Amino acid sequence: MKRILVIYGLLIITFMLFVFYNQNNGSRNADSNPWEQMDEGLRGTIDERYVMVTFLSGIEYWKTAIKGFEDSAQALNVSVEYRGATQYDVNEQVTVLEQVIAKKPAGIALSVINANALTDSINKAVEAGIPIVLFDAGADKSKAYSFLATNNYNAGVTAAHKMAELIGKKGKVAVVTLPNQLNHQDRTVGFQETIFKQYPEIEVVAIKDGKGDQLVSGQAAAEVMKQHPDLQGIFVTEANGGVGVGQLFEYNHKVKIISFDIDKGTLDMVKEGTISATLAQGTWNMGYWSLQFLFHLHHNMTEQSATDIKDGSPLPKFVDTGITVVTQQNVDSFYAK
Amino acid sequence: MKRILVIYGLLIITFMLFVFYNQNNGSRNADSNPWEQMDEGLRGTIDERYVMVTFLSGIEYWKTAIKGFEDSAQALNVSVEYRGATQYDVNEQVTVLEQVIAKKPAGIALSVINANALTDSINKAVEAGIPIVLFDAGADKSKAYSFLATNNYNAGVTAAHKMAELIGKKGKVAVVTLPNQLNHQDRTVGFQETIFKQYPEIEVVAIKDGKGDQLVSGQAAAEVMKQHPDLQGIFVTEANGGVGVGQLFEYNHKVKIISFDIDKGTLDMVKEGTISATLAQGTWNMGYWSLQFLFHLHHNMTEQSATDIKDGSPLPKFVDTGITVVTQQNVDSFYAK
Repeated sequence: MKRILVIYGLLIITFMLFVFYNQNNGSRNADSNPWEQMDEGLRGTIDERYVMVTFLSGIEYWKTAIKGFEDSAQALNVSVEYRGATQYDVNEQVTVLEQVIAKKPAGIALSVINANALTDSINKAVEAGIPIVLFDAGADKSKAYSFLATNNYNAGVTAAHKMAELIGKKGKVAVVTLPNQLNHQDRTVGFQETIFKQYPEIEVVAIKDGKGDQLVSGQAAAEVMKQHPDLQGIFVTEANGGVGVGQLFEYNHKVKIISFDIDKGTLDMVKEGTISATLAQGTWNMGYWSLQFLFHLHHNMTEQSATDIKDGSPLPKFVDTGITVVTQQNVDSFYAK
Repeated sequence: MKRILVIYGLLIITFMLFVFYNQNNGSRNADSNPWEQMDEGLRGTIDERYVMVTFLSGIEYWKTAIKGFEDSAQALNVSVEYRGATQYDVNEQVTVLEQVIAKKPAGIALSVINANALTDSINKAVEAGIPIVLFDAGADKSKAYSFLATNNYNAGVTAAHKMAELIGKKGKVAVVTLPNQLNHQDRTVGFQETIFKQYPEIEVVAIKDGKGDQLVSGQAAAEVMKQHPDLQGIFVTEANGGVGVGQLFEYNHKVKIISFDIDKGTLDMVKEGTISATLAQGTWNMGYWSLQFLFHLHHNMTEQSATDIKDGSPLPKFVDTGITVVTQQNVDSFYAK
């Protein structure tokens, strides 16, 4: 009987060692060949904590990005946390970011309210060995490892092709935008250049400042209509303006409207037919792949450790998360669940 | 004694079942929530076979991409294989791709010799449920899920900034390029626009066709020198031309040369000082992240399954794998090992 207990005990110890080894093996940091050590697949530990930081933390826009970040954490068996400045306030976001950095997380995915104001904090964290990637809104000159966002020029190209399809490749169109913001300039230029090069029978007759405001955007569209009663389409580069322009044509769908983003107001107008199409950004992919990148940086599994090229780009520099065209046909699946 | 053996046997069976469960659990395909099922981390099975397909399969250029693909396979516990057309031959690559598709691999990473010739085969595979991503050279209108490559316009921007630094932001410069190839056009335009917008005291005095040939490129540079004896710098957008232009200035480094890629001939000239800088592409990242994307497609772990948006982009549409500037300071780490 004693002998049984001894063998039994030894087996239990062996078994527990095996389980322990299994659980810890995937999470060791890299020495020489990190890939060989990941023999359990890409798997971290629950005490590995990655943080997503945004501004305007309450808005619906971030929800899908957070979902992607969480799904990625589940796949990799690590922990994530969401922090954000509640307001559209530069100083508040700097404070929040500094607080997050002070806790030395395994990595930070950050959407930048203002590149100038945040670059110093980003660089300080990177120099201290905390990986940072940026998503949705970036900081060109910072030392962040990567930027995952919509390529706004390409979004404008997509809008141009959709517009051409909607109006039969012929007629006058206009743009209502925010001419002083870089991302909106890019959307406008991508739209304009594509129309100019590929659709000789379409003319962009006006580019108006909608100031990101429903009322102003609606008035801008009304002015264009007065000058060009035969206008066929309007591309509005942001969601408030899209709803404002939509209200102008609510009972008369004679102008095709293409808008941006997928807040409820916009989706309702798509469903009802006032807005012909709106462009959904790939926010889930921003969150998901931000965490994958941070995980690879934290575990030293990047090009640098693979090739010994210390000055190389450890990660892809820019990820274009793409655009999806939302129309009456597919609008239902875009409502927040 | 019999009892000991029975207990011992039962324990061994339990233990083996545990090991078996552990090994298989990470590799099941997704049903409802694929992320929850990946509770062992991102891990496939060795019988999951992914294939990389290129043209000109013998050249050094692909080596780092293959290394990235293999490192990724090791991390994910899956199998990879490399296939390529041996020549620069469109039909041969179509044949190789068709053969690979016929074997129904878990996914294909493809570098496209000719978009028109390969789009049909790509689409056929995607429609049959075999995930395809493209790297290095793409096919715009195909149904491939993503394209991982150098953003050539940005590479031109990087070249412009480096040139400005080399010549003290002042003087005449020229470009030797392949004016009929899109990627070389993009490199040239990125260079030109950046010089024009950001360096008012630098002038691009000539853009010459080097035909991707050493001799022709050298002659083109010699002509520019005759017209502009005070030329300060030349940006050559491909490696053969870079070496050709380099030979012209081998014993007289009075013109700063920036070239492209990191074949041995170019690196030797960088080491020796004839070529001031060359631009290394992020080929390891192309290979590594191509396989990560294919793995996520095969296991149905993309935005579509996360958000139920069936028309969305399941993966980021374009990944800019970045550029590294290679100079005398860091050239040693770029030689193939």
